[in-house]
Amino acid sequence: MTDDKPSGKAIAKYSDIDVLEYHSDNYPGNGKIETIAKTSVTNARDLTLAYSPGVAVACLAIEKNPSSLYQYTNVGNTVAVISNGTRILGLGDIGMAGYPVMEGKSILFKALANVDSMPFILDTKDPDEFIRTVEIMAQNFGGINLEDIRKPDCFYIERKLDEKLPIPVFHDDQWGTAIVTLSATINAAKLLDKKFEDMKVVVHGAGASGIAIATMLLGRGVKGENMQVIDRIGSIFDGRHDDMNPYKQELAEQINPKKQFLQLDDAAEGADLLIGVSSKGMFKPRHIQKMADDPIIFALANPVPEILPQDAIDAGAKIIGTGRSDFNNQVNNVLGFPAIFRGALDVKATKITMNMKIAAAEAIAGVLTEDELSLDNVITEPTDPRLMPAEAAAVARAAVKDGVAQRKLTYDEVYQFTKERIEYYKETAGKIVGTRKKPQAYNF
Amino acid sequence: MTDDKPSGKAIAKYSDIDVLEYHSDNYPGNGKIETIAKTSVTNARDLTLAYSPGVAVACLAIEKNPSSLYQYTNVGNTVAVISNGTRILGLGDIGMAGYPVMEGKSILFKALANVDSMPFILDTKDPDEFIRTVEIMAQNFGGINLEDIRKPDCFYIERKLDEKLPIPVFHDDQWGTAIVTLSATINAAKLLDKKFEDMKVVVHGAGASGIAIATMLLGRGVKGENMQVIDRIGSIFDGRHDDMNPYKQELAEQINPKKQFLQLDDAAEGADLLIGVSSKGMFKPRHIQKMADDPIIFALANPVPEILPQDAIDAGAKIIGTGRSDFNNQVNNVLGFPAIFRGALDVKATKITMNMKIAAAEAIAGVLTEDELSLDNVITEPTDPRLMPAEAAAVARAAVKDGVAQRKLTYDEVYQFTKERIEYYKETAGKIVGTRKKPQAYNF
Repeated sequence: MTDDKPSGKAIAKYSDIDVLEYHSDNYPGNGKIETIAKTSVTNARDLTLAYSPGVAVACLAIEKNPSSLYQYTNVGNTVAVISNGTRILGLGDIGMAGYPVMEGKSILFKALANVDSMPFILDTKDPDEFIRTVEIMAQNFGGINLEDIRKPDCFYIERKLDEKLPIPVFHDDQWGTAIVTLSATINAAKLLDKKFEDMKVVVHGAGASGIAIATMLLGRGVKGENMQVIDRIGSIFDGRHDDMNPYKQELAEQINPKKQFLQLDDAAEGADLLIGVSSKGMFKPRHIQKMADDPIIFALANPVPEILPQDAIDAGAKIIGTGRSDFNNQVNNVLGFPAIFRGALDVKATKITMNMKIAAAEAIAGVLTEDELSLDNVITEPTDPRLMPAEAAAVARAAVKDGVAQRKLTYDEVYQFTKERIEYYKETAGKIVGTRKKPQAYNF
Repeated sequence: MTDDKPSGKAIAKYSDIDVLEYHSDNYPGNGKIETIAKTSVTNARDLTLAYSPGVAVACLAIEKNPSSLYQYTNVGNTVAVISNGTRILGLGDIGMAGYPVMEGKSILFKALANVDSMPFILDTKDPDEFIRTVEIMAQNFGGINLEDIRKPDCFYIERKLDEKLPIPVFHDDQWGTAIVTLSATINAAKLLDKKFEDMKVVVHGAGASGIAIATMLLGRGVKGENMQVIDRIGSIFDGRHDDMNPYKQELAEQINPKKQFLQLDDAAEGADLLIGVSSKGMFKPRHIQKMADDPIIFALANPVPEILPQDAIDAGAKIIGTGRSDFNNQVNNVLGFPAIFRGALDVKATKITMNMKIAAAEAIAGVLTEDELSLDNVITEPTDPRLMPAEAAAVARAAVKDGVAQRKLTYDEVYQFTKERIEYYKETAGKIVGTRKKPQAYNF
């Protein structure tokens, strides 16, 4: 047990106006993303090479050897960010109004790991039609990042696409959050000298990320007998019949062997780790007061957490993390997806396996040195320059080990290239940002 | 009649190696396209604004006022380039091997008119499934450029999507080629003092572009009695039953009132203008020798034309144009699509009307001064700095006039902004091109 107190202070304040200004007037055109040419397009010869008739040579080369698609196009460095708009952040089913989230993800992919991506909200809520649409689109991408899809459709969609497609499919709301939560838990446990095999864990919420978080914690050594997962009616257990689905059932078979049916008030009793992936304000001071010594709370509802950091600290929380970038200890999926896809694309992985996910979590946790670890700092920032190269390399190494890599690269190769690619982006496209103002001449 | 002789010389030579090098090793990643951020993504505050939680403010603003989607995202400046791979250039149904054409189109959209775009080859050959897929994707775009889809599916797909979608849908193989062919014909007729209302025209090929070219020439004043459109079996006429489709039938009702059933050898007799949109080598010297004085030939099959320029000139052609950028007088759809979409996007057009298409053709033709016009130069180059602003502005003006513009801008506003946007691209992203080399450290 440490005697320090976490600070709980908010960082990176912003106003609504700041957000709206960030999203508009980014000349030329609004929004956050832009597609540019990597090649010269300035004279007749360039046009001949880029387009008809020269381009036919590249087409015929690919027709002859389909795997050269990745050599002559950008498909292999491009991820589709795809939602159906049914569960945008914590805002619910707002459809196309969620598009700024997808564009946001695209620019993070690029700036943090030099992964190209295209953002989409597809205009269908039917899971099978969504799956078929993604299947029809998929050959244009090196990977698919599913995003903000309501449960349980998200599980069904991810599993079906993972079976059908020869490229990585990754639902970030499940696995991104789970990977980073595991990573934060690894460091919190280290700091507070808690052991995974003894830790008593309560996961509040059995949606996309709740189930994935529980699954990954079990995979890393938490015991099923020490885990309660609570949904809107109470604890999940094998044999419960109300409000179950196949994904809750799979999890139920691994936890809560005493088949207790608890509410949060009872489950919190003596818990070391309380994870919220439910909704705002669900955690009260009394829940935290009932927990074990040095309680760890990750309150991940977005945009408003289950409990605000200061309230948690006042109630005795030792480590409190949220999903928000304006507080300390952000359990931020941005730490995961850019480098996970960077590593997967580099080795042309056909899947993102559980070992690749765990490798990512360990790599994220491992970035902070013992000196840096503190109650306010169990997890690094996405802009930490050490993070993406180490994480991408760890993911790529796990892919090679698991036999899903179609291109064998070493850890050092992926590490070095990721580092160079990020630096390259900063020095080129990153430097243009300051020039993006709307010219006087055109003021509508 | 002029006494000059056209030169027929090939320009812009290239080798297969040149093409393949142009398409690979464009660090970071292969291919020609890249997606970048227009905003700063360098610190925690940026991440807060771009993504969770700040981005929720932009989402809620769009939820409240759906039309602000174009204010806070790049959707309004983004065109989807979409094919099903069934008719790639003149190479046929090569599926995903045609992807370099789509990427090529995307970079031309950007470099020539600062339109962002995303390239796709969809993995379905079923027209109804293709339509449904595009419908599901469409809300992410300000316009849809259909590309390289086999006939007659292309007609059916374009019409259905045009009916269903509230954004411009434009099949470039039909209209792009037709617009630029009309443009070249306007200048050729001017130079050779031929009048549209007297011109005898043969269109060889009744596919996507053949039907569109004939339709636009009729729209600009060619008389139906002076037009023969010949497909693989002979002249189309109202009442013919073999090998017809609804699109040929529509055209048949406007031309060839004598219901002649001719082959090219007879149809060419006395023709002023012979247009090939069929396949390589279909035009023989004897066809050209039979034409009227000062014959105009546009041999547009790609990548190998119906007759090579030198052979046409030797047979008496006065003006010969092809679809290739390595010969003079390129009837090049690159002259059309970038500025057509630029103008349409600027005024938020809901459609691309026939008047917008004709306005584009007149604008392209009008760029060349009388002094510049010559047998070797009836049509300008896509890189002519006068072209895109004038064409975009003309298209936008026609959209406003036709009542399909949701944003009323003047000709001068669109002209000026297009000019600035193109200049901006050259000065920013265009300058990065030279830095794209693969670093030594990463040599796979």
